[in-house]
Amino acid sequence: MTPLDPVVADLAASVPAPDAEAAARTRDRWATLAAPPGALGRLEELACDLSGSTGRCPPDVPGSPAVVVCAGDHGVHGQDVTAWPQGVTAAMVDALGRGGAAVNALAEVTGASVHVLDVGVATAVPDRPGLHRARVRAGTRDLRVADAMTRAECVRALRAGVDLVDRLLASGTDLMVTGDMGIANTTAAAALIAACTGTPAADVTGRGAGIDDRGLAHKATVVADALDRARPDPVGDPIGVLAALGGLEHAALVGVLLAGGAARVPVVLDGVNADAAALVACALAPHLAGHLVAGHVSAEPGAQLALAHLGLEPVLDLGLRLGEGTGALLAVPVLQSAAAACGRMAALTDLDVP
Amino acid sequence: MTPLDPVVADLAASVPAPDAEAAARTRDRWATLAAPPGALGRLEELACDLSGSTGRCPPDVPGSPAVVVCAGDHGVHGQDVTAWPQGVTAAMVDALGRGGAAVNALAEVTGASVHVLDVGVATAVPDRPGLHRARVRAGTRDLRVADAMTRAECVRALRAGVDLVDRLLASGTDLMVTGDMGIANTTAAAALIAACTGTPAADVTGRGAGIDDRGLAHKATVVADALDRARPDPVGDPIGVLAALGGLEHAALVGVLLAGGAARVPVVLDGVNADAAALVACALAPHLAGHLVAGHVSAEPGAQLALAHLGLEPVLDLGLRLGEGTGALLAVPVLQSAAAACGRMAALTDLDVP
Repeated sequence: MTPLDPVVADLAASVPAPDAEAAARTRDRWATLAAPPGALGRLEELACDLSGSTGRCPPDVPGSPAVVVCAGDHGVHGQDVTAWPQGVTAAMVDALGRGGAAVNALAEVTGASVHVLDVGVATAVPDRPGLHRARVRAGTRDLRVADAMTRAECVRALRAGVDLVDRLLASGTDLMVTGDMGIANTTAAAALIAACTGTPAADVTGRGAGIDDRGLAHKATVVADALDRARPDPVGDPIGVLAALGGLEHAALVGVLLAGGAARVPVVLDGVNADAAALVACALAPHLAGHLVAGHVSAEPGAQLALAHLGLEPVLDLGLRLGEGTGALLAVPVLQSAAAACGRMAALTDLDVP
Repeated sequence: MTPLDPVVADLAASVPAPDAEAAARTRDRWATLAAPPGALGRLEELACDLSGSTGRCPPDVPGSPAVVVCAGDHGVHGQDVTAWPQGVTAAMVDALGRGGAAVNALAEVTGASVHVLDVGVATAVPDRPGLHRARVRAGTRDLRVADAMTRAECVRALRAGVDLVDRLLASGTDLMVTGDMGIANTTAAAALIAACTGTPAADVTGRGAGIDDRGLAHKATVVADALDRARPDPVGDPIGVLAALGGLEHAALVGVLLAGGAARVPVVLDGVNADAAALVACALAPHLAGHLVAGHVSAEPGAQLALAHLGLEPVLDLGLRLGEGTGALLAVPVLQSAAAACGRMAALTDLDVP
């Protein structure tokens, strides 16, 4: 077991077990409400999950969701794993700040605030509303040939995620939503998922923003080479795995998840990058999964594997593979609806049956 | 071909074909936006569908959705097809008016207005906000032994749905959402779906609000007897099928669907009762399906069959089987998100790639 950074160790240890008693009370509550047993399907389970995470029965309706879009670049971009130029990361971070990304449009529908956390974009990004600067380095090293980050860099990015979430929670956020932006980050996500689940590279590697069959085979080779090089130990040294194979935004996402869980604020996972970060975070904090909701299942193959490993069933399956937090945001009204129905429906005994 | 009521015939004939040109422009628009092609998955298709229905590219974000919960009772209740007393229909209509039903809680999350249309509740219902009285008769006749309604009664209920939708559209509703309330109505829905799709009763009949295996077998026998009795002709006489086998709320739902489609206002279908009504409505108006969105797929077996017959793919599958409009309402933010992303995302050419 490699010793953990003490701040990370304390944070991980502080993530509480879900409140089984609150979840059970919510389960019992459903049986008293004015609907046939089980008729609200997944909404009933989600309300129980919210009660488990927050300890409240019925669960509060989360009214102030916040998306944290963790952004970084990737040295592995140089290995031709994507057709998109690296500068698109900075351009999209800028678009996010100007409100022109898909996640901005979806957040407006849902009433969520959007925050962008630059922990490792390779190129300059102008100041924009909602942009939080915490750049650890200008993109990772190439994970095929070297550890993507030092452990210290990894912990700095992780703690940047924690710090931002702590500030958001202090200002009233009651539901965290993950997002990510980083050209080539599905390569790093595939490597993390392969390492944490013990799955061959070819089974977890996907087309990301769209590559052809030949590009996909090459990308899987890059992931396989990285795994051979890094010899990951996900049980004994999750931070070592993250530093060797992840992105700075994955490290920040681990911080987001831990900080949410530690505060008993549920975190909605977006796609394959959040799922990869969740594998690392749950290795650090065994109780964390009880505070996570899989907002959707990305079309990337690693997503399904990661969620199965985490024991999380996705809420939605709409074929999205964009990232940014889009899939997770679509699940927010479902969670709000679950809590609202559980809290506001009349009791069966209150019905005035003639 | 049995002659149609002239008002219904005119309405059905006035439902326009979807605007293929607007849908194609929206499809082309996605390729210009700041996201990889296809990365928004189902959202991209839904935006095209909205453009097809409304004729607008990009589609407007529907900001004023309204749920119409069509309510009625069923003579077939006397055949022991459900464990719930008939008076629950009136009690739930009252709960809907008091804001205590599941759909009220979900509508609050979504910002939808809730309207209850009593076209055939068997027992008295007190005045409540949002309750529209258009009772045609105090519940249908028992469809196992007689036509559930006369053709004239059926058309009156249908037109009550049209009238309410016309008023809602005049006051700014831009997205219709179907709902239903009626103890025993899944028996009538199963009969309609069996008749319209040519499927054996046993394959379309489900547990509704929850019956055991023996109850399910009995319910399927009741549906089979009704089909034997009525000898439905869904192609030549859809209104005859509706009158023979449906409920007054199904007739009203047919009116809701036709009125929405005729006005180029998309209609989100809830569960198996809306799906059954959609089969009848699409038999009357061949272009209607292009204005319908299957909000979710109910856990009732007939739902999947009906949607397949209609060529509609459900947006959500969350295991709901409540009715009231709950499943459809959960799909509303997805539709709003699809339109918002399509309309508000930056163009790829606007990205400032370093």
